[in-house]
Amino acid sequence: MHKKLFIPGPVEVRQEVLEKMSTPMIGHRSKEASELQRHISDNLRKLFYTQSEILLSTSSGSGLMEGAIRSCTAKRAAVFSVGAFGKRWYKMAISNNVPADIFEFEMGKAVKVDKVKEVLNTGKYDLVAVTHNETSTGIMNPIKEIGEVIKNYPEVVFIVDTVSSAGGTKIEVDNCGIDVCLTSSQKALGLPPGLSVCTFSEKAKNRAENVKNRGFYLDLLALYKYLKKKNYQYPSTPSLSHMFALDYQLNYILNVEGLENRFKRHIEMADIVRNWGRKYFELFPEEGYLSNTLTTIKNTRGISVSDLNKELAKRGFQISNGYGDLKEKTFRIAHMADITVDEVKELLDNINDILDLK
Amino acid sequence: MHKKLFIPGPVEVRQEVLEKMSTPMIGHRSKEASELQRHISDNLRKLFYTQSEILLSTSSGSGLMEGAIRSCTAKRAAVFSVGAFGKRWYKMAISNNVPADIFEFEMGKAVKVDKVKEVLNTGKYDLVAVTHNETSTGIMNPIKEIGEVIKNYPEVVFIVDTVSSAGGTKIEVDNCGIDVCLTSSQKALGLPPGLSVCTFSEKAKNRAENVKNRGFYLDLLALYKYLKKKNYQYPSTPSLSHMFALDYQLNYILNVEGLENRFKRHIEMADIVRNWGRKYFELFPEEGYLSNTLTTIKNTRGISVSDLNKELAKRGFQISNGYGDLKEKTFRIAHMADITVDEVKELLDNINDILDLK
Repeated sequence: MHKKLFIPGPVEVRQEVLEKMSTPMIGHRSKEASELQRHISDNLRKLFYTQSEILLSTSSGSGLMEGAIRSCTAKRAAVFSVGAFGKRWYKMAISNNVPADIFEFEMGKAVKVDKVKEVLNTGKYDLVAVTHNETSTGIMNPIKEIGEVIKNYPEVVFIVDTVSSAGGTKIEVDNCGIDVCLTSSQKALGLPPGLSVCTFSEKAKNRAENVKNRGFYLDLLALYKYLKKKNYQYPSTPSLSHMFALDYQLNYILNVEGLENRFKRHIEMADIVRNWGRKYFELFPEEGYLSNTLTTIKNTRGISVSDLNKELAKRGFQISNGYGDLKEKTFRIAHMADITVDEVKELLDNINDILDLK
Repeated sequence: MHKKLFIPGPVEVRQEVLEKMSTPMIGHRSKEASELQRHISDNLRKLFYTQSEILLSTSSGSGLMEGAIRSCTAKRAAVFSVGAFGKRWYKMAISNNVPADIFEFEMGKAVKVDKVKEVLNTGKYDLVAVTHNETSTGIMNPIKEIGEVIKNYPEVVFIVDTVSSAGGTKIEVDNCGIDVCLTSSQKALGLPPGLSVCTFSEKAKNRAENVKNRGFYLDLLALYKYLKKKNYQYPSTPSLSHMFALDYQLNYILNVEGLENRFKRHIEMADIVRNWGRKYFELFPEEGYLSNTLTTIKNTRGISVSDLNKELAKRGFQISNGYGDLKEKTFRIAHMADITVDEVKELLDNINDILDLK
């Protein structure tokens, strides 16, 4: 029995999008392949509200995260972390001998803008890495405010992981001063996993030109240069299946549903889940920084989350237990991509029924 | 109009395999995901004739190549190169500050085993990297003989790029003493591009334990450790679509067509194309080392390869021009994956007709 996924990726994928994954192959050095990538790039620029170039990577979001922090740090990276995926930025830097420091905030709290200011005032850093939407806690960081601070430090490249938010909430890349904004296919974009994408500003490009030891496959500058030289092609063989599906889905997002409608629907779904969470449990993340794509709920009733998921599975649903140490202490309901308001309500009704909540 | 692909990847993919790419999503931390990866690993062990562990990477073959040479070189890598993909090994090492030397053979010639012996006798190297099937020239290197030499140097880890040969010709990984044998989905395995796989020996694992600076996403040891700890799961979110399709296709290769039949069919197709090439042109690579999956033909008639491909496109076929500097001086016909003998004959009949060859 198929389980409808309310987990923070992979998400439920629309049938039409799944079908595009079956498109017959074309040569990756053909005009069609160039046109396909160019079309995707043009549409992603709209989704990200940016003039920057778009890079594709046949990898999970982690691949592009590593590529970004390694390609764009010349001096020292400052990682501001509010959970597991923030820590991942730091691990990636260290494992590539990229000088970096991590500044951690309590689980469930957002990045404090004053801290960013204080850290950058040391003059030690030329890159800031932030997780926009931290799926381990359900926090959505204030990237607009962080970006405002960073604008005062012209040397600093700003890279943001929007893996679980892009496509589900408005991210104005140029307005926020983001140099590399990356996401992957299997979250709010509503595709299967296997492809990641990012914006790549002129500033990021200039920085990468001055970074040695950028590696090969995840080198953002290599992706950029190849694309420019070879008319929107990819240095190795890309996942064409994902590109066909992404091209189709971007057209749907931009021209059928419409970006504003999509963001509104995500807020609506988030509100329903939050209000349910507040009524029967408590919300884990601090108010004011709640994610629009995922809600983390404190298990104040001491239920067995794992048993709840077993019961839900019998009814064709799946939610997520807490992440890492938060397992059983919290649980997570993702409300992203193409799930509808009615489907969210149906899920909550089923949980109410299983837990006998009134 | 769809063009049937006789290019060295992406290849023509069977309809049933394409359809598996549309399988609805499952959680990548579920029991089903573990079972899927374990089943793929068991079957790949049969395909590679090995007892080694199998690693999957959501990347093109280049990603795993970089991961292998970076993760497994502690002292210095010796790259034996017979063309563009051999050079790529070297570039990957250098771009990661991995000490390496390249030993190049003339385009169209195979690696000479005596040279390997001579190089390893210096005692400078603890890793040998070789391309099995060099798609830029159509050479299939004698990995069995190279492996025999390497067995005399117990310190040396042997890594082989079988990207365009695995699944189309017998590669006995354990018999050849290969520690990391890697390939990707879009060649002789007959899948869309986007996933790569490798064998990972105990010796490769022990080596990687002693290598610092292995990076994150392409770190073979990290993939291995995660798989062991988390019961055949993948550290980030893998391309589940490719895994569904690969699982299906491996069952077809092993249990429907059968490995021996598959290899025999590839030899049959290769013989037909070679004989045609010898009759009307000349073969580019040296006899004795001809690839079973791809034939590179010297353009002794001075035809316009690009015009030929345009005419073929009108009839629904696509072959490859020469690679890089060999463009128009050679052309390449791939005969791999699930293309049939009759389809190869049909292609050649069409070329004969277009070029008026009798």
